[in-house]
Amino acid sequence: MEAYFDNSATTRCSAGVRDIVVKAMTEDFGNPSAMHRKGVEAEQYIRRTSEILAGTLKVSPKEILYTSGGTESDNLAVFGAAQAGRRRGLHVITSAVEHPAVAQPMEALREQGYEVTVLPVDSRGVVRMDALEEALRPDTILVSVMYVNNETGSVMPVEQMGKQIHARSPQALFHVDAIQAFGKYRIYPRRTGIDLLSVSSHKIHGPKGCGFLYVRDGVRIRPQILGGGQQNGMRSGTDNVPGIAGLGEAAREAYEDFEEKTARLYALKERMAAGLETIPDVRVNGMPLPEAAPHILSITFPGIRSEVLLHALEERGIYVSAGSACASHKSRPSTTLTAMGLSTKEAQSAIRVSFSEENTPEEVDYTLEVLKELVPMLRRYSRH
Amino acid sequence: MEAYFDNSATTRCSAGVRDIVVKAMTEDFGNPSAMHRKGVEAEQYIRRTSEILAGTLKVSPKEILYTSGGTESDNLAVFGAAQAGRRRGLHVITSAVEHPAVAQPMEALREQGYEVTVLPVDSRGVVRMDALEEALRPDTILVSVMYVNNETGSVMPVEQMGKQIHARSPQALFHVDAIQAFGKYRIYPRRTGIDLLSVSSHKIHGPKGCGFLYVRDGVRIRPQILGGGQQNGMRSGTDNVPGIAGLGEAAREAYEDFEEKTARLYALKERMAAGLETIPDVRVNGMPLPEAAPHILSITFPGIRSEVLLHALEERGIYVSAGSACASHKSRPSTTLTAMGLSTKEAQSAIRVSFSEENTPEEVDYTLEVLKELVPMLRRYSRH
Repeated sequence: MEAYFDNSATTRCSAGVRDIVVKAMTEDFGNPSAMHRKGVEAEQYIRRTSEILAGTLKVSPKEILYTSGGTESDNLAVFGAAQAGRRRGLHVITSAVEHPAVAQPMEALREQGYEVTVLPVDSRGVVRMDALEEALRPDTILVSVMYVNNETGSVMPVEQMGKQIHARSPQALFHVDAIQAFGKYRIYPRRTGIDLLSVSSHKIHGPKGCGFLYVRDGVRIRPQILGGGQQNGMRSGTDNVPGIAGLGEAAREAYEDFEEKTARLYALKERMAAGLETIPDVRVNGMPLPEAAPHILSITFPGIRSEVLLHALEERGIYVSAGSACASHKSRPSTTLTAMGLSTKEAQSAIRVSFSEENTPEEVDYTLEVLKELVPMLRRYSRH
Repeated sequence: MEAYFDNSATTRCSAGVRDIVVKAMTEDFGNPSAMHRKGVEAEQYIRRTSEILAGTLKVSPKEILYTSGGTESDNLAVFGAAQAGRRRGLHVITSAVEHPAVAQPMEALREQGYEVTVLPVDSRGVVRMDALEEALRPDTILVSVMYVNNETGSVMPVEQMGKQIHARSPQALFHVDAIQAFGKYRIYPRRTGIDLLSVSSHKIHGPKGCGFLYVRDGVRIRPQILGGGQQNGMRSGTDNVPGIAGLGEAAREAYEDFEEKTARLYALKERMAAGLETIPDVRVNGMPLPEAAPHILSITFPGIRSEVLLHALEERGIYVSAGSACASHKSRPSTTLTAMGLSTKEAQSAIRVSFSEENTPEEVDYTLEVLKELVPMLRRYSRH
């Protein structure tokens, strides 16, 4: 049996996504910047996606800005907002559990003379509201916090944050990295006070190499990639029509039968968690189950290094990740887990199991069986 | 009959490209950053592409850096080199006929305090070597010039430039935008003295949303997109495996039967040019035919505005562009053509016909027939 439980790293493209990508690559392959019919036909794909995305977020299609993926969206939001807001202030706020696509640009801003406040999280991995309240100042120009943590599935109180931010720092833009949340939550930026929202396509069964940034109408950010002036000059370069078409289809599918799908994900996750309780000395990290995101489970197996367990599972056709895939092969202990209070050793014994609608209860049961066999064995080895 | 003659704007994906993109989207869909087999399998696609690209350029696979396309490659080269070289000098050089993906970043550098010299071109649209010689200084840190002009097909003397640049400005990096040249010329960066080379996938029947920058080993540029540290930290973000796989396949196909294909392109172009001579008062812009690139023909039809002719041709199923598609719907006269000495009026009467291997002599003949009918008619209209 094979069980792919690394869906927070990336997902398989759906059949609908594949079909529309192929059509845009081989039939309606025009350049949307072209003035003739082939350009207009290609542009229809983009329009359709913008309408789908705007529909799911209840925003205007004009507020959707396409990028090459989640990382570019995050970079554009952080650098773009900080640079555009430079004259109004140099203070920016982020959290200790952000993805490197936000954390690294924040580090770069610090080197450029910005003042960066990093908010701590509690033991559940949730950003502390008291710390945010204390950090917000009149010269704060940007707050960037993720919606769902990519390693633990912990959910941040973004709605509460939005209110707090706009009440205390009227100059500040609120950027939310929703890369692990889009498709799993109904997100309404306007109601939530979100000014900028990053989304990636390949986390929701869409193609890699594509994503978008929601930019609230009226918000000014500085473009990072310059050229032919596509997307109103906000992001130049020939529009990735097949990618954008695939992203739209993936988003449509993600919010189709949404409640049913979410319930199925929760059921898979609960089945896994319940089974883990029968293995001695295993801990689930982050928020308690029903509060956390439906698709991510972070588990510590004390006494076993993540990579050892990962490769042992791989031998049995089970694919999980050690921390998150996004740190690109680095084996440093997860900063997210250590920020939550786990020791380096505990963090180095954590694996992430992440689900998609394609997973089955049988795969969960199989994985539990394998774990019940492997965990005691690996612990015996590691004691020697 | 339909005749797509806008191949310099974008091309149709080949069947081989479609197949490998589909495979990487639906079968080997892993995240190359993942530590398990699914990640390793995905990484093979990237390795294969790097080997193909390195093979065509006679460089090392490690010198290939993937981006979201030509525009990002150009931005990364210009900003990355200028920022990394800042301490050694603030002087950069470019030409008057660059694509906006180079020209706009150059403008931004000027605003940031760099000194930008813009080299003029001669009436054939070729950068003047005497101007380059005069412009090169010890504190020049970057020269960015395109290989083949996207509007006229004029070919720049890059080899001569490379020698000149490295002789006079040992600090300078030589960036070549080869977006219209790759696949049409055999390009050997080492021999030519090229340090950075931009290539786009969708101009050679590969997927949109993908490209690469060749970065000579030892050259330091500053990364522009930060995050998980993919590609040795030089360009973060989940690798676009399907796009990269498609780019590799497209490059392989482009250099397969290369001489034969190039000859076929020249034959199409010559057939078109010869036929145009039978229409009164029509001028081919740029270099004389055998010297210019095999796939681009810029033609001025005095007395007819480009858009009018473009739409009239479109009605007959013939797709060309007014200037280049890259200026995204703008109807300003082409800066490339005016830099070559054409009047605003002449520039506004130019269309670009661009060929690919998919075009046929029959399509050329059909287009000539239509032009012979349309041109006198449109001229009569415009005189009223």
